[in-house]
Amino acid sequence: MNRSRRTVLQAAAASGLGAGMVTTVGASTARAVAPEAGGPASHRGDADSVSVAVLLYEGFTALDAVGPYEVLCRVPRVTVTMVAEKAGRIRTDTGELTLVAERSLDSVDRADVLVVPGGSGTKATMENTVVLDWIRHIHRRSVWTTSVCTGSLILGAAGLLRGLPATTFWAGRSYLADLGAEYTPGRFVEAGKIITAAGVSAGIDMGLHLAARLSDEKVAQAMQLAVEYDPDPPFDTGSPEKAGPELQQLALQLLADAER
Amino acid sequence: MNRSRRTVLQAAAASGLGAGMVTTVGASTARAVAPEAGGPASHRGDADSVSVAVLLYEGFTALDAVGPYEVLCRVPRVTVTMVAEKAGRIRTDTGELTLVAERSLDSVDRADVLVVPGGSGTKATMENTVVLDWIRHIHRRSVWTTSVCTGSLILGAAGLLRGLPATTFWAGRSYLADLGAEYTPGRFVEAGKIITAAGVSAGIDMGLHLAARLSDEKVAQAMQLAVEYDPDPPFDTGSPEKAGPELQQLALQLLADAER
Repeated sequence: MNRSRRTVLQAAAASGLGAGMVTTVGASTARAVAPEAGGPASHRGDADSVSVAVLLYEGFTALDAVGPYEVLCRVPRVTVTMVAEKAGRIRTDTGELTLVAERSLDSVDRADVLVVPGGSGTKATMENTVVLDWIRHIHRRSVWTTSVCTGSLILGAAGLLRGLPATTFWAGRSYLADLGAEYTPGRFVEAGKIITAAGVSAGIDMGLHLAARLSDEKVAQAMQLAVEYDPDPPFDTGSPEKAGPELQQLALQLLADAER
Repeated sequence: MNRSRRTVLQAAAASGLGAGMVTTVGASTARAVAPEAGGPASHRGDADSVSVAVLLYEGFTALDAVGPYEVLCRVPRVTVTMVAEKAGRIRTDTGELTLVAERSLDSVDRADVLVVPGGSGTKATMENTVVLDWIRHIHRRSVWTTSVCTGSLILGAAGLLRGLPATTFWAGRSYLADLGAEYTPGRFVEAGKIITAAGVSAGIDMGLHLAARLSDEKVAQAMQLAVEYDPDPPFDTGSPEKAGPELQQLALQLLADAER
């Protein structure tokens, strides 16, 4: 079997086209990912693993949660779990998509990494004391506490952003000050162990950064390739500054119209 | 109330922080999206709407499905529905995330747009005659038949890519020829009414292109802003050419290791 054919078979194995044919190709994937010294054990009880809890709630935005999940779930020793106030089916902000929360908040006492997505359910979640208490509890021992989009407003409502630089969905930037945070431009903003990402798709960029923090740059770079994240959008209107006021208004209208 | 305060409130309404406060800001969002002349009616029975069916199957990759969903679901008159052989919970390729298919294949007779994701379940799906028959049936009257990642190999197995240019996940490129298609570089490749996207995250780029095709460029540009898709990955290793052979091997290993 020549080299090129072997590579194809390995590719096939990776994409499920030929399970069992892949061979081990380096020690780097077996590298242990150690939480910070004295850091928390996984909520699965394996001190050597890294647990990522993604908070779901009615009206979250799907991509906010799935972006970080997709680039973190294959990092060695990382386990990603969707959690919600009650385990089970959770509807997204459009009402057209449902994800399943595997665990309820009261069954998750620890997580090394917390990811809080945004969405139209942000406001209700900012007033949900059960959820805010849980976030504060997890944050106390987390290695990283993170958010995507308006998820940072939830972290803010939990009192975690006071005096810190942070970002959020472009249309929600002005709310950060009310929560004691200082809006800071950036795809994601790291402040101590808190990382806040900008809107929706920014969770992919933050997730890759986090993958490097939880493992190493090589693994994060390989994960970028694994999801073929070589972005080439057909337009260049992804920030409010690039899009201008007319598209900003249209975007807000489309978001409001699609809310269930 | 000054202008800047009003803008903040509109933003708030859009993000669910102040429902009901947003005002209509232009006629463009009310623009009808007409299917092609003689094109299919929605499977929801509303001839004026555009139905998007996303095929789920055990072992699909979450972001392949959620990327296009997120940029299409707010396009005026578009409805996105997750469908699977049986309605209900469908596990992704890592086994760590479950999405819900709202409809079963046998209850969906038509869709204006079909989206087929990839994932480790691709091979089994390429051999599932029930699914392949359904894909061929939907394709007969679809306006657009699309795929993300190794989803194009499923379209190929259904016989839809013969003699056509197409793309797929980077590690699966060589399989396209066996299915009668011609691998063509690109974030997505349009051939008649078939659009195939490259790996995983390329579904977001394809989705924005499709949003423009289903509505107009302004709406697609506004959707790019709505998901704040102004990508700025911390690395530049998103294509096999940029990543090189060592990261290719590591990516394939991470994919294989994470398969449930």
